[in-house]
Parts: sequence; C-alpha cells; structure tokens
Amino acid sequence: MRIITTINEMQTFSKKTLRSGKTIGFVPTMGYLHEGHMSLVEEALKQNDCVIMSIFVNPLQFGPNEDFDRYPRDLKRDEELAKQAGVDILFYPNVKEMYPKERTTRLTVQERVDTLCGESRPGHFDGVATVVMKLLQIVLPDRAYFGMKDAQQVAVIKGLVEDFNVPVEIVPCPIIREEDGLAKSSRNVYLTPTEREEAIQLSRSLDAAANAIERGETNPVRIKELIISYLNQTSGVIDYVEVLSYPALEAIDVMKENIIVAVAVQFTAARLIDNKVTTRSEIAIGV
Amino acid sequence: MRIITTINEMQTFSKKTLRSGKTIGFVPTMGYLHEGHMSLVEEALKQNDCVIMSIFVNPLQFGPNEDFDRYPRDLKRDEELAKQAGVDILFYPNVKEMYPKERTTRLTVQERVDTLCGESRPGHFDGVATVVMKLLQIVLPDRAYFGMKDAQQVAVIKGLVEDFNVPVEIVPCPIIREEDGLAKSSRNVYLTPTEREEAIQLSRSLDAAANAIERGETNPVRIKELIISYLNQTSGVIDYVEVLSYPALEAIDVMKENIIVAVAVQFTAARLIDNKVTTRSEIAIGV
Repeated sequence: MRIITTINEMQTFSKKTLRSGKTIGFVPTMGYLHEGHMSLVEEALKQNDCVIMSIFVNPLQFGPNEDFDRYPRDLKRDEELAKQAGVDILFYPNVKEMYPKERTTRLTVQERVDTLCGESRPGHFDGVATVVMKLLQIVLPDRAYFGMKDAQQVAVIKGLVEDFNVPVEIVPCPIIREEDGLAKSSRNVYLTPTEREEAIQLSRSLDAAANAIERGETNPVRIKELIISYLNQTSGVIDYVEVLSYPALEAIDVMKENIIVAVAVQFTAARLIDNKVTTRSEIAIGV
Repeated sequence: MRIITTINEMQTFSKKTLRSGKTIGFVPTMGYLHEGHMSLVEEALKQNDCVIMSIFVNPLQFGPNEDFDRYPRDLKRDEELAKQAGVDILFYPNVKEMYPKERTTRLTVQERVDTLCGESRPGHFDGVATVVMKLLQIVLPDRAYFGMKDAQQVAVIKGLVEDFNVPVEIVPCPIIREEDGLAKSSRNVYLTPTEREEAIQLSRSLDAAANAIERGETNPVRIKELIISYLNQTSGVIDYVEVLSYPALEAIDVMKENIIVAVAVQFTAARLIDNKVTTRSEIAIGV
C-alpha cells in the first residue's frame, strides 16, 4: 500500500491509472477505521481495479462547538487496517494541503438539509459537499462508497453529483452493526460503559418502527412516539426522531414512498446517529 | 466532426478518449462563432489529441433584463465553422439537458465579483461558475481555453478550478480584434453603423491607458480620466472604467502588480466590454 499526502501526487497517480484503462474505487473516510469502513473497502475491491481510501478529518464540516479537535485519530492503526484490507493507495492530506488559502467560491446545499443532522448542525453539509467535491476531483474515481449510517450524507452527495454531472457512481453500502445492534461508529469509543449498554436502544427503536410500518402503521406521529419510548430508556438527550421520505427527506403523510426512520441521541461525550430505510417493496411484503 | 447533444453520450465519449491515453482540449462557447473562438480552437488543436467545442447559451448567467432571448444564434453556420477549424466533437446540449430539475446545491462566487461585470450583472458569475463546473465534469478536458476578452471570467474560473482541484489547465488566450482594434464579439452585430465607428474608442482608450502606465503614470484616477475622455466621444453610456490588480481584481495604489484596465459601454442594443492586462515586466520595459 502506498501512502500519498499531496494533491498533486494523488491526482497524477489517478490520471495515470485512468489513462492505463483501469477503474478506481474510492472510500472517503475521516479515519479511526472500523468494520463499517472495511465493508466499503470490501465492496470497492469487488468492483474496481484500484482502491483508494482517503483519511481526512475535514474541519469545514464541524461546527465551532463540535468535536473537531477531539475527533478520534490513530493513523498507525488505520494504516495497518487499510493495508490488511487490500487498499492500494491511502490518501492522507493535511488541512493546509486541502485548504491552502481563502476560497473564492462557496458550495452550499439547499435541499435535504433542513432536517435531521442538517438542522442540528448548520453548515455541516456545506462542508461535506465541499470536501467531497474536492476529493472526487483529486481521486477521480469511477465509483465512490458511502455508508448508509450517514443516510442524509448519501442523499446530499447524490444530489451534488447529479447537479454537477460528476462522472462517478455513488454506491451506498449497508450499515454495519455490533452484535447487539449498535451501529459501528468511530465515536462509540467515547461512550461510558453504562451509555454503551443503553445505546442499543437506538437500533431497537428503529427495528420496532420498521416492524410497525410493516404491520401497516401509517401515522408518522405514532411511529415517532414508539421510537421515543425506546430512547427514553437511555440517559442520552434526544436530538431528533424523524420519519421522512428517502432520499428527498421530506415530510410524508402516507406510506407510499421509501421511508427513512432516523434518530440522533447526545450522550455525555458522543452524539450517536442511526437510521433504517424501509423500501416500498419491503413494506408491501409486510402488508 | 461529430455532434453530441446528450450529457451521457458526451461523458462516455470523453471517458473512453481518456482511457485510450489521449488528451482532450475544450473550447466552451455560447456559439455565434467569430475569429476569437477560432483562435481558441487553433490553440487547443496544437496542444491536444482531441478538441471538443461546446455551444450552450447558458440561461443561468443572464439576468432577468438581459439579452438571453435575443442572444445571437446560428447553429448551421457555427457547425460549418467548427468543422472547418478542425473541431472533433461539437457538444450542443439544450437547456433541459443541462438543467433537468431543481438543483439541490448552489455554487456562488465570493471573490473577484464585486467589480467590473460582476458588479453590473449580479449573479452572472454564479451562473458562469455553475455551467463551467458542469461542462468540465461532462467533457473531462486536460485543458480548457478561454479568451481574455472576458478577463474577469478567466480570473473567476481559475479561482473555481483551484478551489475544487478540478484536474484541468485553464489556458487564457489573447483578445482577437478587428483591423481597427475593436475586440471581436458575438454582440458586435447589434451595433448600428455609427456605433460601430464609435466603438473603436474602447480599444483606443485602453491603448492610451497602457501607454500612460508605461510612461510611468501611477495614479488610477488619472488613468480612468484618460480612458473616459476617449469613451465620451461615443454615444454609448459608460457602465464601468476600472484599473485593478489582476487576477485578484482589487484596488491598487501603486503600480507594483499585474494591472488590468477594463471598460464596459452600453450602446443601444449591445453592451461591449474590452480590457488590457499590462504585466509588470512590460511596465518595467516602459519605465
């Protein structure tokens, strides 16, 4: 595995790879890798000749009171994991390399951001869109892999790529979970032992909601109440509980679209998110 | 010469061209081609294996009271000229193809736009940046060619490409002029015979300004007065006269940077622009 730290070297490598007729799969991450990231690499390896992973904790997507400084980092361990997984290139630029000077333009996200994490984290998705656009130009992938744990991120990036005709296929990959159902997250390390126990209520609440929908529940308010009844069993503070259409992320009255049930809970030192997207065909089976 | 009208076909062609190891030169235009455009094609042919020209009158860069509807169009003539010039692919999408639905994101230009055409045409450069970003993703050029007649456009696009690390070299090309000095422009056809005579004052005023700078004039106010004395000999209304640093387009006090002298004059049915960039080395020769 080769480690590349400059944009120029990364872009030169990618251009050369493309010109030689090979395909590139891209797994963008903020590091502190877990099985969720590894499942993206696995998928990328299946579909492309060359797999590039980036590790970049992007300051632009963190709010002033958020955890940019204490976001967990462990490059040595990440390197080892990426290498073992079969990553060809690890792109690891620093902040100065990615943002060398004042930008002359701004990319902002107008749709799909007035809810969920976009509502709780103003400007977050502008930062995500900006860094993803830059990374796509630098890495030049044929396919880019994103975990559905950040389902809103996937929706935003799909919109971005369509708006600007970026020649890349966005491949959403399923959420990877611990045995008890907790969605894998780099931030899970910040849970206290008690919170770690309680945190299983997030996935349980979503399972219960999905079951209710499959049994024919069509009232978003009742679905939310059901979810909240689970989350109230934790010491965390509920940030949001939403039942929305996916990927448009709009309010729904009837159950005729793909539906996302999504939650965010703030624990002492970690804000956890989780979601479940129920496709219309799954519902049909349930009904 | 092949004509392509869909994004999908254009992108597929470009990807295939790149994968075969060939380079692509791109000349984006709004059509109604003149020798200015042809000089860009000539330069592109010298430096690339394949030359793609786009013709797209981009509604996004026209203000509500501007000339989008009556912007001159003549596809048959353009086709013939492009073919004769040696263009390989003419990309000619319609508005619905380029903007099929409401966009979910916005690209805005923050710097270099509070002056010159950016000041007179609010939102114009947001529209330019958006369509250029899309075209660069669709055509995937190694090099893109822009005329220095729109010097501010070149500065804005250079900023955009740097901000997002778009893997393309922006190649600015010199202004092409009529024998009497008038800068070639698709909009020149809308000048009355009298206005056409008067319009030579634009380039004359810029030549006089450049000469004054070379002779050591360091006062932007006196340079502007000199320019205005020429433009006042026309029946047009002066939109702006500016002396700025280039490409930052900031106010200057002393003559220590590359300098652009730029003018815009509104005639009855055509708004004409012209400029001259004086590089520091040229000034040094003059002094």
